[in-house]
Amino acid sequence: MSSVEPRLLANAIRFLSIDTIVHAGEGHQGVPLGMAEISTALFTRHMKFSPADPTWPDRDRFVLSNGHGSMLLYSLLYLTGYEKISLDQVKTFRELGSHCAGHPEIDPACGIEVTTGPLGQGIANAFGMAVAEAYLAARFGADLVDHYTYAFVGDGCLQEGIGQEMISLAGHLKLGKLVLFWDDNKITDDGATALSISEDVAARFRVADWHVIEVDGHDVEAVSAAISLAKRDPRPSLIACRTIIGRGLPRVQGQRGGHSARLFAKDAAAARELLDWPHAPFDIPDDTLAAWRAAGHRSDAEHAAWRKRLTALPAADRAEFERVQAGELPAGWREVLHTYKQRATADSEPKPGIFASAEINDLLVDILPERIVGCADLESPTSHKRNLAAFTAADRAGAYVHCGVREHLMGAMANGIAAHGGAIALAVTYLAFSDYERPAMRMAALMGLPVKFVFSHDSIGVGKNGPTHQPVEILAALRAMPNMLVMRPADAVEAAECWEVALEQRRTPASLIFARQALPTVRTHHGDDNLSRRGAYVLADPEGGPRAVTLLATGSEVNVALAARLLLQADGIPTAVVSMPCWSLFDAQDADYRHAVLGEGTVRVGVEAAMRFGWDQYLGSHGGFVGMTGFGASGPVDQLYERFGITPSAVAAEAKRHL
Amino acid sequence: MSSVEPRLLANAIRFLSIDTIVHAGEGHQGVPLGMAEISTALFTRHMKFSPADPTWPDRDRFVLSNGHGSMLLYSLLYLTGYEKISLDQVKTFRELGSHCAGHPEIDPACGIEVTTGPLGQGIANAFGMAVAEAYLAARFGADLVDHYTYAFVGDGCLQEGIGQEMISLAGHLKLGKLVLFWDDNKITDDGATALSISEDVAARFRVADWHVIEVDGHDVEAVSAAISLAKRDPRPSLIACRTIIGRGLPRVQGQRGGHSARLFAKDAAAARELLDWPHAPFDIPDDTLAAWRAAGHRSDAEHAAWRKRLTALPAADRAEFERVQAGELPAGWREVLHTYKQRATADSEPKPGIFASAEINDLLVDILPERIVGCADLESPTSHKRNLAAFTAADRAGAYVHCGVREHLMGAMANGIAAHGGAIALAVTYLAFSDYERPAMRMAALMGLPVKFVFSHDSIGVGKNGPTHQPVEILAALRAMPNMLVMRPADAVEAAECWEVALEQRRTPASLIFARQALPTVRTHHGDDNLSRRGAYVLADPEGGPRAVTLLATGSEVNVALAARLLLQADGIPTAVVSMPCWSLFDAQDADYRHAVLGEGTVRVGVEAAMRFGWDQYLGSHGGFVGMTGFGASGPVDQLYERFGITPSAVAAEAKRHL
Repeated sequence: MSSVEPRLLANAIRFLSIDTIVHAGEGHQGVPLGMAEISTALFTRHMKFSPADPTWPDRDRFVLSNGHGSMLLYSLLYLTGYEKISLDQVKTFRELGSHCAGHPEIDPACGIEVTTGPLGQGIANAFGMAVAEAYLAARFGADLVDHYTYAFVGDGCLQEGIGQEMISLAGHLKLGKLVLFWDDNKITDDGATALSISEDVAARFRVADWHVIEVDGHDVEAVSAAISLAKRDPRPSLIACRTIIGRGLPRVQGQRGGHSARLFAKDAAAARELLDWPHAPFDIPDDTLAAWRAAGHRSDAEHAAWRKRLTALPAADRAEFERVQAGELPAGWREVLHTYKQRATADSEPKPGIFASAEINDLLVDILPERIVGCADLESPTSHKRNLAAFTAADRAGAYVHCGVREHLMGAMANGIAAHGGAIALAVTYLAFSDYERPAMRMAALMGLPVKFVFSHDSIGVGKNGPTHQPVEILAALRAMPNMLVMRPADAVEAAECWEVALEQRRTPASLIFARQALPTVRTHHGDDNLSRRGAYVLADPEGGPRAVTLLATGSEVNVALAARLLLQADGIPTAVVSMPCWSLFDAQDADYRHAVLGEGTVRVGVEAAMRFGWDQYLGSHGGFVGMTGFGASGPVDQLYERFGITPSAVAAEAKRHL
Repeated sequence: MSSVEPRLLANAIRFLSIDTIVHAGEGHQGVPLGMAEISTALFTRHMKFSPADPTWPDRDRFVLSNGHGSMLLYSLLYLTGYEKISLDQVKTFRELGSHCAGHPEIDPACGIEVTTGPLGQGIANAFGMAVAEAYLAARFGADLVDHYTYAFVGDGCLQEGIGQEMISLAGHLKLGKLVLFWDDNKITDDGATALSISEDVAARFRVADWHVIEVDGHDVEAVSAAISLAKRDPRPSLIACRTIIGRGLPRVQGQRGGHSARLFAKDAAAARELLDWPHAPFDIPDDTLAAWRAAGHRSDAEHAAWRKRLTALPAADRAEFERVQAGELPAGWREVLHTYKQRATADSEPKPGIFASAEINDLLVDILPERIVGCADLESPTSHKRNLAAFTAADRAGAYVHCGVREHLMGAMANGIAAHGGAIALAVTYLAFSDYERPAMRMAALMGLPVKFVFSHDSIGVGKNGPTHQPVEILAALRAMPNMLVMRPADAVEAAECWEVALEQRRTPASLIFARQALPTVRTHHGDDNLSRRGAYVLADPEGGPRAVTLLATGSEVNVALAARLLLQADGIPTAVVSMPCWSLFDAQDADYRHAVLGEGTVRVGVEAAMRFGWDQYLGSHGGFVGMTGFGASGPVDQLYERFGITPSAVAAEAKRHL
C-alpha cells in the first residue's frame, strides 16, 4: 500500500481527467470524477495486473461498462504505467488515431479489454469473461487460471434489458469472481434517475442472489474493504457505491451537467481550489505518480510466480494451455471436417440444415475442448448440446451454457468469452431472434472477435410458426455489417466448409445460418478444395453450349436453382448454377474469378427466400430475382414456397423473361 | 356468473385446443392447457369486451404475450362468440390463410390485439397500451376511457431483457391498470426453468413496486379473487399463477413435453378419460357453449352505457374523440408543416438535422395532442420534449415518456400505443442504438403500425464519440425491412416533407433519420409540392448540355454531392444531383419517373456516409460509390470525412473515373 494519501491518488485521476477533457474541448467527466476513489481502491490495493505484460493470461479483467467515462480508464492506464498510454498519448484524447478514443476501443496491449459505449454491453462482456475464467480454471486448474473480473457500471447499463439479463443469469450461475462497482450517482443524461426509475437497484441484485455491499464511493478504505469481502463471497458481488457525479467541479458536481457539460479552464481552476490541488495542468507530483507506478508493479511477484508455474508444467500441458491462449487450433481439427464432408457428399438422405451443423459440432467436442456453446432455450430444435455437459454453478467443466431466453446476453457473453481468450464462443438461436442479439453482434464485428453466431430456422422454411419466426430481411441486414462473415450453406457439405472457414478466423466473427427444413445434398461430388472459401462457385455447369443463364442462389434455394436449371436445360438453354454461401468472401476474390463465376453477359437470376435487397450487385442491370417481397405467412412449408413463388418453374420463367 | 361449473368451462378450452392441435398435427398445448382456468376466471368474470363490437374503444385489452400458445386465444375467441372465429375457422389452425395462424397475428376485428411470438414483445406492447389508456383517460375523461390491460406471460417473456425493462418502468410509472398473469409452470423449451433461472420472480416484481398476488392457477375462484384485488390496487399487478404445463394430458403434463410435444389421438383420448370429458372431438356441450357465449355478452350493458355517454357528448368533443380513435389527422396539420417548410427554404443558417425534427415536432404540440413521445434518456441531444410535460405516475396528461436507457421497451411501447389507438407514438434515440429496439421495429413493420421511430446521430457525423456511436450499416439494415419507410432528409425542408409523409401513414411505420451535425439548406427554392413524397427527385439539374453524370445522395451527403457537382460543372461535365430521402417510396414510382430521375445511360455515383450495400440497384453495372467501407473512428467530424474520403473532390474523381 502506498504512503501517499489515497485522497491524492484519487485526485491525480481527477485532474488528469479534467485537464484532458478541457484540452480536448469535450468528454464525459462524470465517471472519472465520480469513480476516482473507487478506482484508487481497486487499482492500488486489489487488481492483479501487469502494465509491463498487459496480456498476462491470468490478469484480473477490468471492464469500463460505462464507456463514455473513458478518461477514467486512460488516466488509470497512464498512472499505472502502460507504456503505450503516455502523457502525450493521453493529450490526444478523442483525436483521430489516438489510443485514447472517445469510447474505449479494444486493445489488450494497451490495457483496454473490450470496446464499450453502447450501454449494457460491457457488463455482459464481463459476465462472459467470468464464464470463461471459471471454465478454464476447471480445465487447467487454479495454478494457471484464477482471476477476478471487475466491471464499473452506471445506471444506464443496469436499466438496459441486457444488464438485467446479466444480473439474473450471473446470480443463477454463482459467478463468484465477478465483481461490479455501481456508480450510484442518481444522475443520467436526462437528469435525476428518478425520472425513469424508482426501484431499489441493490434489492434487485439481492433477489438474483448477488452479494451486495453498499458503501460510500468516495471512501477508499470502505471500498477496499468491500472488495475484500466481495473476493471471498461465493456469489457474484455488487459493490453499490454512493457517489457524486463530477465530484470536484463546483459548477456541475452532483448535477445533470456533471455528466458531460462542457468544461472550461475556469472549471479546472475552481476544482483546484476546492480540492487543494496546486499543480499545473497535467502535472502530477512525483511522489503521487511514483505511488501509482508502484501500484502498477504490485502484482509483479504474483506474475513471476505464475510464469514459474507455467514453465514448470509438463511440456504437453503447457503447450495445450499456450495453444488455446493463442487462439490456435489443434492438429487434426481440419481432418475431422474433411472426413465429415466426404461422408456428407455421399449422403443421399436430406437432413435439416441445422442438424448438419449439430453433427459437425458434435465431432468437434473432443478435439476442440475450448468451445463454449451458449444457447437461448432452444436446445432441442438446434441440437448443439450433444455430448456436452451443462456449465452450472456446481459444474464449471460443462461447456454448454443454458442462457435462458436471453439472446442479447448470450451474444455479449460470447464476445466476453472471446475477448477473454482461451476459448471459442458459440451463440445459438433462431435467425429471427438474431435481432435480439444484434447489438452484441455489431460489437463482435467492431472489436474483431471471432465469435460463431449460429442460427437455425432461416426463412419461410420455418412454416406454420409464421412470419414472426420467418426471417426475410435479416440476411441482408447482417450482410450489410462490416467484418461479419455471413454464411448460408446449401447442404451438409457446404456446412462443413463454412465451419472450416469460420474456425480459421482470428479477427472476424461469423454468422452461420442454417435451415430448419431438410436439405438434400447438392454437392454430390467430393473434392478436397473448400469451394465455400471463395464465397461463391459454379456448382453446376451449363450443357450443350456456352452459358446463357446463371442462377445464383444460397442455402435452401440452391436446390430450387438446380431444379430450375434442369427445366431450362430441357428447353435447350445452357444454364449454370452458382452457389453463394458467403458474399463477403466472394467480394474479396479477384475480378477474373468473380466475372467468371457470375457469368458476365449471361442472364442472371438470384434465388433466395429473402428480400432482394443487396442482390442487385450480382445481377447486373438486367438481372432477375426470385424471392420474397415482404413478410412471410403461417402455413405448411411447401405451400409457402408456392404462395411466394419460389419454385423451379418460377425461376425458369424469370430467366426466360430476361433472355 | 355462469351456472355451468368453472371446471367445465376451463375444460372446454382444453379440449378445443387439444382437438385442434391433434387435427393440425402440431401446436403448443402447454399454454392453453396450463392457463385454462386463468382464462376462465378472466373472460367469464372480469374482462370488459364485446365480441359483437370487437374494436369498442374502451374494451379491456388482452395480450397473449406467450404467443406460441395461440390456441388458447382462438379457443377463447370462438367460445365467447367472435363471428370471424367460427369452429370451422378454428379447424384451419396453422393453415395458410387462416385467422388462426401459428402465432396470433394482429386483427382487432377478430379479437387479436397484437401479433405476438417473439418473447417479451407482448408484455411491452401491453405496457404501451396501459400508457395510452392513462394518457387518453387524462385527456378525455374516465367516461370515455377507463379500461384495463391484461396480459398472459410465460417465463420466457420475463427472462428477456425487454420484459425486465417493462417491469422496472411499469412499476415506476405506477400503471395500475396493467395486470399480468404469469404462467408459473417451471418449464421452458429446454426443460426445467431451474436450468437457467433461480431468482424469485415474484420478488423481482415486488422490488419494482408491483402488486403481487400468488395463487393456484388452476383455481378459478382464487384467480378471480386475485383479479378483483388487482383491479383495485394503484400499482401494476402481477398475478403469479402456479400452474401445470399441459395440464390434462397424462403423458406430458408438468413435463418438458407439455410445451409442444406432438400430440396424437390417443393423447386426446387419455385426456378425456382423466378429465371426465365424454364428448366427441370439437363437440362442446350446449350448456357449456351457452355459458361461454353469455360471457361474451357480460359487458353488453357497459357497452351500451358507454355508447350512450359518447352520444351525449357535445358534438365537438365527440368528433375529436372519434377523430383520434380513427387515427385521422386534424384540419390544419399540413399547413403547419408547409409553413415551416417555406420558412426553412429561406433559412441560410445551418442547423443540426435532429433539431429540424425537434422544431417541427414543437410546432405539432398543440395541433396534434395525440402524439406520445418516448425517448431513451437522450432528451437534451434529441430535443423532442420542447413544450411537453413528462408522463409520470402523478401526471398522466404529460405526453413525454422518460423511458430511461431502455430502447427495446421504448420501441415496443410505441407499438402498444399505436395498437391501442387514439394516439400517435414516437420513439426517439440515436441511430446506433436502433439495433437495441430493432426487434420491436420489425414487429411494427409486420403489424403495420404507423409508429414514428426517430433517430439522431446518423453517421460518422457523430465525430469523437467514435465507431460504437457511428452507424455505417444501419441504414441498409433498415431499408431491407419490408413495410418500413426509411427516411433520411437532407435538410429542414426535406425534414418537413418526410414528416408530412410519415404522418399520413396508416399501415406503415417510418424511421426518420437525422444528422447530429449542422446541415445547410439544400432546398433553397420553395415549391408547394412535397418532392420527398416520390422518394427521390432531381435537386440540381445539369448545365451546359445533356446530363452526363448523376450524383445520388441522401441526408448530410446531399450537400457533398452539390459541391461535387460544382467541381464537375467547372470541368464542363453536365451533372445532376438527385436527393433520395426514401428509397422505398422511390421504388414505388412508375418506371418513367424512376428512369428519368436516375438518368439511365449517365454515369451514376452514389454518395452516402454508409456502406454501399443496397446501393447497386440504383447505380447500374458501371456505377460508382463514395461512402464507408467499414466502421468509423473517433475524431473530429471534418477529419473523419477526409479520412474516409467522403468529400466533393472524391465524388468528382469517382464520377470521372467512370466517365
